[in-house]
Amino acid sequence: MKRILIVGIGAGDPDHLTLQAVRAIGRADAFLVLDKGEAKHDLVRLRRDMIRTHAREPYRLVEARDPDRDRAAPAYAAAVEEWRSRRADLYEAFVRDELGDDETGAILVWGDPGLYDSTLAGVEEVVERGAVAFEYDVIAGITSVSALTARHRVSLTRVARPVHVTTGRRLAQEGPAADDVVVMLDAHCAFAGLGEEFHIYWGAYLGTPDEILVAGPVPEVADRIRELRAEARDRKGWIMDTYLLRRVSPEPS
Amino acid sequence: MKRILIVGIGAGDPDHLTLQAVRAIGRADAFLVLDKGEAKHDLVRLRRDMIRTHAREPYRLVEARDPDRDRAAPAYAAAVEEWRSRRADLYEAFVRDELGDDETGAILVWGDPGLYDSTLAGVEEVVERGAVAFEYDVIAGITSVSALTARHRVSLTRVARPVHVTTGRRLAQEGPAADDVVVMLDAHCAFAGLGEEFHIYWGAYLGTPDEILVAGPVPEVADRIRELRAEARDRKGWIMDTYLLRRVSPEPS
Ligand SMILES: C[S@@+](CC[C@H](N)C(=O)[O-])C[C@H]1O[C@@H](n2cnc3c(N)ncnc32)[C@H](O)[C@@H]1O
Ligand SMILES: C[S@@+](CC[C@H](N)C(=O)[O-])C[C@H]1O[C@@H](n2cnc3c(N)ncnc32)[C@H](O)[C@@H]1O
Repeated sequence: MKRILIVGIGAGDPDHLTLQAVRAIGRADAFLVLDKGEAKHDLVRLRRDMIRTHAREPYRLVEARDPDRDRAAPAYAAAVEEWRSRRADLYEAFVRDELGDDETGAILVWGDPGLYDSTLAGVEEVVERGAVAFEYDVIAGITSVSALTARHRVSLTRVARPVHVTTGRRLAQEGPAADDVVVMLDAHCAFAGLGEEFHIYWGAYLGTPDEILVAGPVPEVADRIRELRAEARDRKGWIMDTYLLRRVSPEPS
Repeated sequence: MKRILIVGIGAGDPDHLTLQAVRAIGRADAFLVLDKGEAKHDLVRLRRDMIRTHAREPYRLVEARDPDRDRAAPAYAAAVEEWRSRRADLYEAFVRDELGDDETGAILVWGDPGLYDSTLAGVEEVVERGAVAFEYDVIAGITSVSALTARHRVSLTRVARPVHVTTGRRLAQEGPAADDVVVMLDAHCAFAGLGEEFHIYWGAYLGTPDEILVAGPVPEVADRIRELRAEARDRKGWIMDTYLLRRVSPEPS
């Protein structure tokens, strides 16, 4: 049986790789690496370096251009679905054309494959189509959320309290849905309007040499984050940032 | 300067260790291992095995009895605070008595140190007391949440939707606070009353040889989970389980 491993590689630091991921990379005969275009070249290079370091020779590197996503689409979920289906075409071709019988292919996924990532859904779509037979496994990875809180040396959760993980879009629409909220995929600094009752722990390029950390009451640090963010984004051509919002004096639970 | 490393070790599988954690263990001169009493012996043994495998000799193993927590206390948060302060005494003694100048001590933490874990708060308390001088760092780990979703091969988040992470107590009090909810620290199967609009992905002893996985609509699988849980808990003397609740047909977002 052909086999696909969906391998979480952590959120930026090559040493975020788990021993399980190292072994998975060492077991693979072929790797599918999707190129996201020039801008995010660093991210592709990190994956290539991991493969070079941990793969068992001989191995094959299969490169393909990641389909573009219409980020301006008002129907965000629909646009993601459409894009995911084009991704499924790539996965299907990888299994069909690039893996021999009983061979293992690996797809390296940023962070953890379960957190705002479409790889698993794309692979499920290939399973549903039923045109190629294969097994697949998922290997957990360090999330950017764990990377964020570790680098700030702050706990994600407070005693007996929940934490809400959401997107920048939702934060902008709904405000903080809990006293502790993690925000991902935020291109517009949706935290900016919050008052001093919220403390922010912000991090960009976590785990990489470009890492930036800022923490403080939102009104005190919002401008600085916005400036650092714009400057870094211009300089590097891309940015990945995430943050934890914490209400300083919540109602007793 | 003395240094403490708070090292996330993942949620049960020794191969959840990251390369960063392996290096941290290799750098430590002494390890603080808290014994939780007979029942949770497996968990202590996993830590000892990791140290034996990855530590650089000579190293010192410092063992102490983890203070008991009053789990029946109605003021849950207060009981946790009190217990944390007794833990801080242990950390303080470890730094003061067991580490030489410029030595590094490591504390291995289950899963990720940011997720429902008191080690960081205990170490912060030692810093606040100001009686011993030291630096400290946190090393991210694979959470039981990532382990759960990887083993079920299911995504934690759905496209453009949030996920809520909470405790069994809160789920029992408030019901599901979102369409996707992860529940931890649940000793009473608080999911049991939910209807078929919720799918559950349940896992116990994730990453270990005793791992149990069950998934399905809550009313169909609730009894089976309850039975498996009770049986395993009797047999092993302890259980750790967690689950994702997913509303099958949520309102469009
Ligand atoms: C498509 S999601 C993928 C998340 C990934 N699967 C994980 O587990 O972290 C991308 C978002 O993750 C966050 N992110 C990922 N890596 C990051 C990093 N190194 N530093 C800061 N944020 C990061 C950002 O919010 C970014 O918009
Ligand atoms: C005190 S919290 C610690 C969580 C840990 N820091 C983490 O990142 O997963 C303990 C709870 O985590 C969950 N848990 C931890 N390890 C688990 C495992 N191997 N299998 C199932 N649940 C686990 C259970 O809900 C348990 O009640």
